[in-house]
Amino acid sequence: MAQPPSMDDIRTAHDRIAPFVHRTPVMTCATLDAMSRRRLFFKCENLQRVGAFKYRGASNVVQSISADQARRGVCTHSSGNHAQALARAAQARGIPAWIVMPTSAPAVKREAVIGYGGTVIDCEPTLQARELTAAQVVEDTGATFVHPYDDPRIIAGQATAAVELLDEIEDLDAIIAPIGGGGLMSGTCLAASVIRPGIRLIGVEPAGADDAARSLEAGVCIPQTDPNTICDGLLTSLSELTWSILKMHLETIQRVSDEEVRAAMRLLWERAKCVVEPSAATTLAAVLSDDCPLPQGGRVGLILSGGNVSMPEPQISPARRGDV
Amino acid sequence: MAQPPSMDDIRTAHDRIAPFVHRTPVMTCATLDAMSRRRLFFKCENLQRVGAFKYRGASNVVQSISADQARRGVCTHSSGNHAQALARAAQARGIPAWIVMPTSAPAVKREAVIGYGGTVIDCEPTLQARELTAAQVVEDTGATFVHPYDDPRIIAGQATAAVELLDEIEDLDAIIAPIGGGGLMSGTCLAASVIRPGIRLIGVEPAGADDAARSLEAGVCIPQTDPNTICDGLLTSLSELTWSILKMHLETIQRVSDEEVRAAMRLLWERAKCVVEPSAATTLAAVLSDDCPLPQGGRVGLILSGGNVSMPEPQISPARRGDV
Repeated sequence: MAQPPSMDDIRTAHDRIAPFVHRTPVMTCATLDAMSRRRLFFKCENLQRVGAFKYRGASNVVQSISADQARRGVCTHSSGNHAQALARAAQARGIPAWIVMPTSAPAVKREAVIGYGGTVIDCEPTLQARELTAAQVVEDTGATFVHPYDDPRIIAGQATAAVELLDEIEDLDAIIAPIGGGGLMSGTCLAASVIRPGIRLIGVEPAGADDAARSLEAGVCIPQTDPNTICDGLLTSLSELTWSILKMHLETIQRVSDEEVRAAMRLLWERAKCVVEPSAATTLAAVLSDDCPLPQGGRVGLILSGGNVSMPEPQISPARRGDV
Repeated sequence: MAQPPSMDDIRTAHDRIAPFVHRTPVMTCATLDAMSRRRLFFKCENLQRVGAFKYRGASNVVQSISADQARRGVCTHSSGNHAQALARAAQARGIPAWIVMPTSAPAVKREAVIGYGGTVIDCEPTLQARELTAAQVVEDTGATFVHPYDDPRIIAGQATAAVELLDEIEDLDAIIAPIGGGGLMSGTCLAASVIRPGIRLIGVEPAGADDAARSLEAGVCIPQTDPNTICDGLLTSLSELTWSILKMHLETIQRVSDEEVRAAMRLLWERAKCVVEPSAATTLAAVLSDDCPLPQGGRVGLILSGGNVSMPEPQISPARRGDV
């Protein structure tokens, strides 16, 4: 197992990717403060390039490999935000990206990768087929394989969102972030525990993909076998690396239902005017729930992990004069 | 007719309201730049308090009246963003707000005003009934009547959005803003023509409420008689004051169809992750249209006037492992 990145690694990553990533805004919303009875600070990674924090980690790897490695390109298997992030990061350095995708992936996701200059490689929709196909691409091309989260360079990149949040907002009592493979939350833990010792670190998972919560309760890493949730960014299992970091730093992992996520997502759309995907809305769902362990009145940072969601058709009728 | 506010009035308004309003971010979106073949800078008044630029003008009036006037409160007739803005601005100063609303106004708009501490006064859904009812409230209470746009103090307040946009983004070639009663666009014209002489000033209207465009073409102010558009913030007629400013400064007013507005709104939702209302999306519709008079490659500021729109129910099904 690789070593977790150090705070120096995280600072270096932040300097390295700064010219390529957006320094995303931190938003507040008086209505959501009142509803949650806390002061909420939303780190808007939905406004990051490619619409997700994944661009931070991907940029850190792509910008840190040697010129010789870079020439041969990068490769991953993913149909989610990591695929787009790696393709876009490779495009920024002018190198090839080979993205292995199941044939079942939606056309819009394939087109996004192609739009960023990536090459899509088809495979059967099983994890084994994806891993084998990617291994073959790496053998054929000499490309660098970039795992979506099981990599200290990825974790260091994802950690930079928390670095910016803590730099901008003083006296945060807690940070809440979602857990899929654990790259975002483990990076958040490593950065926040150094920058603000004693800050409360809360993970959140959909009840239908709660491997990290069950792992924390059992004290051993339990893989996710049959996820079922609208949070399509949070389906994967932890790796030994992310698990080793999370178990050391996390206070707890809160579970939220798909219904709570749906309601929280709608609130972020309508009240905060922020388009977020379900995975990101888990954080607001957590602080709106009676299960939230954080006291009222506290200052809470929430990482809005991404905004890639198909919006429903607007339902708006013509207005007339009497409506003014 | 009142005199237009001077640049000094606008600067004073900006200083006066700064403690109360959000300095809203200016967003960019690479995808929308590519689609419009221009560099677009979105001034996000959808993220202003109460979700609209209207809070700027309302705050300027509420914060500038004397203590004696303030004690007797403020009054307006509106069921739109101005109603919420005035109620919220009055709450910030701790004074009463009387909001005359037609009985036909949606419950959600009445509740918003009440949520901000305002008092809703019912009236019949005609302009005459609204004006008479408001006049009666003013007579009974001694409240200060605050018109949504026909007031130099309101115009000076709305102008502060352009002041911030021009302060933050250098070398803008043009600014586009929507026109309803003309408060936002006339303030924008007064500020921008002083801060950046020669900047191109383009208004936009829905084709179904194009009184300002017809007025500019005819050279005389023509009232809007029978509006029909999804842009519920842009139904009203110009006043003599806003017309006198617009006719002096505007290069042109572009018309956009409801279909163009709907498509532009969806793009702002999905691509820029920005929730905007139809009235705000007119600006993007304008630069995406072949009718746009601005050259390719130019730097264009777009004022996203508001974000108060009922969002459709999310249509999202559970994802499963194969989708990762």
